[in-house]
Amino acid sequence: MRKILLTLWLSLGPGLASATTVDTAAVPAARKNFVNNPVAIVIHGGAGTIRREKLDAATEAAYRSKLTEAVTAGHDVLKAGGSSREAVIAAIVVMEDSDLFNAGHGAVLNHEGDAELDASIMVGSDLAAGAVAGVRHIRNPIMLADRVMTHSRHVMLIGSGAEEFAVEQGFEKVPNEYFKTERRQEQLQRLKEKDQVSLSEADDKFGTVGAVALDIHGVIAAGTSTGGMTNKRYGRVGDSPIIAAGTYADDNCGISATGHGEYFIRAAVAHDICARARYQGVSLAEAGEAVVNGRLVEMGADGGVIGLNAEGNIIMPFNSAGMYRASVDPDGKLMTGIFSDEGE
Amino acid sequence: MRKILLTLWLSLGPGLASATTVDTAAVPAARKNFVNNPVAIVIHGGAGTIRREKLDAATEAAYRSKLTEAVTAGHDVLKAGGSSREAVIAAIVVMEDSDLFNAGHGAVLNHEGDAELDASIMVGSDLAAGAVAGVRHIRNPIMLADRVMTHSRHVMLIGSGAEEFAVEQGFEKVPNEYFKTERRQEQLQRLKEKDQVSLSEADDKFGTVGAVALDIHGVIAAGTSTGGMTNKRYGRVGDSPIIAAGTYADDNCGISATGHGEYFIRAAVAHDICARARYQGVSLAEAGEAVVNGRLVEMGADGGVIGLNAEGNIIMPFNSAGMYRASVDPDGKLMTGIFSDEGE
Repeated sequence: MRKILLTLWLSLGPGLASATTVDTAAVPAARKNFVNNPVAIVIHGGAGTIRREKLDAATEAAYRSKLTEAVTAGHDVLKAGGSSREAVIAAIVVMEDSDLFNAGHGAVLNHEGDAELDASIMVGSDLAAGAVAGVRHIRNPIMLADRVMTHSRHVMLIGSGAEEFAVEQGFEKVPNEYFKTERRQEQLQRLKEKDQVSLSEADDKFGTVGAVALDIHGVIAAGTSTGGMTNKRYGRVGDSPIIAAGTYADDNCGISATGHGEYFIRAAVAHDICARARYQGVSLAEAGEAVVNGRLVEMGADGGVIGLNAEGNIIMPFNSAGMYRASVDPDGKLMTGIFSDEGE
Repeated sequence: MRKILLTLWLSLGPGLASATTVDTAAVPAARKNFVNNPVAIVIHGGAGTIRREKLDAATEAAYRSKLTEAVTAGHDVLKAGGSSREAVIAAIVVMEDSDLFNAGHGAVLNHEGDAELDASIMVGSDLAAGAVAGVRHIRNPIMLADRVMTHSRHVMLIGSGAEEFAVEQGFEKVPNEYFKTERRQEQLQRLKEKDQVSLSEADDKFGTVGAVALDIHGVIAAGTSTGGMTNKRYGRVGDSPIIAAGTYADDNCGISATGHGEYFIRAAVAHDICARARYQGVSLAEAGEAVVNGRLVEMGADGGVIGLNAEGNIIMPFNSAGMYRASVDPDGKLMTGIFSDEGE
């Protein structure tokens, strides 16, 4: 799988060369002369009431294995000198293709029983951004969000218009059935019987996947992808495709969020964390704590974020029982985490 | 017209009583005991290359008259003790119903020749927010964004799903022809012949309307409504329906933006201005200048914002030649402005 992804990256790389050009003017001066700058990546696969007693050993092992595969896919890109943007895509594609997460294949289903997918990506050096919402036939929504960023003059495309753009860009349309799994169909049925809307299985886990990476050029990128809420109606869009809410990156801060999207939009979570770090002069860790375990808790919002800064300092705060997460730090140390008592 | 709007407000008011209840815990302590707190409102009707020599006297008079009508409609609500949320809606509805502005009736047309409308609203005291994107049959999109905020558990609804919600909420669907004017159809034809995308007429004015108000309870609300870009394709969404980009309000800051939406999303304009004011401890005016005439200019983005804080200090910075704008300050002084050499 890693090999496939590296091939994917290599085949994507040259075609997107213009988009991957680094604006050196935007790279912090201290980094410009160091070809061996630290690289780092952090990913999440959703947050919520994930407790040890509810996760059997085989399932836990499956999550840790897939998180390791995803974070390694991204890290391999960074080690090879690839961009943070490409690393973010590589990591997220692994999770979109896995049925363990609420994104791509295995995404939750809306009221009509269909998958409706949202994604966004942002590159911090030049604040380039792309997002799609409400797409139903694109296998990897993060790749379409990226294409919006690199091959259109727009930032956000929605619904069938986004898919029209995808087809013109050579994306293959897949039937909506590709996304559907038995588990999600049963989950929808249970919730419909109770007439409830849920962000994830058993009303207690917020889906969404995301990645934030720092590349050898000192450029930060962040991306997020989701199927949203089970049994959602009315073309509901959460924070994942909203720049400043679910995803944000600038030249010293990148964030991807997972949680109760409505609150995350209202609190402008991703941008607020970066803004606090920049304007208050506090550390990224302090800013993340203030938002995730301060403001969001006050609002009654569950969830978490992952993030890093230009020094490669990684944060993964969450206020729920657990958050699927993994990282490779500047020393090359890999960690995976699910529960709240696991150190970072 | 003023009478009609006051009637509209009075008829809306009681039905939305639960939504208009002020959370006094969120009102700054200094304001709680003052029933005669200052009220203020500021509106915009778009920014761009609006120069004296290009605007004939009759057209200029029509804009000033309609801006006066809109800002007065909002101010009347505030004077009568209504909420900032109701004032914002009253002001924006006047501009949506006018064919002078790129919102509601008279909105620009997309590539297919249809109007596709976006709007959002936010109340600062409890960070409540609502937004719709890509709606085609709702006469006043700002009222639908408000209904999403007050009558759903969601923040953002898109496309036909948003209209399904509207119908369930008793909104009447209007044919898309209601929005179309001869001027916009000619404008689309000209751009299609040149294969261009424009944010507004003659490629030089950014449409969008917006309002920010401070009510007697010290609560700030902000709202924005737009038809987006002429000849737009692919379900393009700009900053207007994006909380943190086109619209943001908290307990001491409210912003509505107008300009090149893609840049405004990437710069998270509305939230960034409020964040600078809060975290850097600078005035709202300084924060607005830093973003509109600093960061946005560096990015090459044209446009402007309107805003106010809990003291009723009003800002209207823009970096384009002109911006349609009007305000009534805490002293009750009304002003309208179009060009850059008009004082505020």
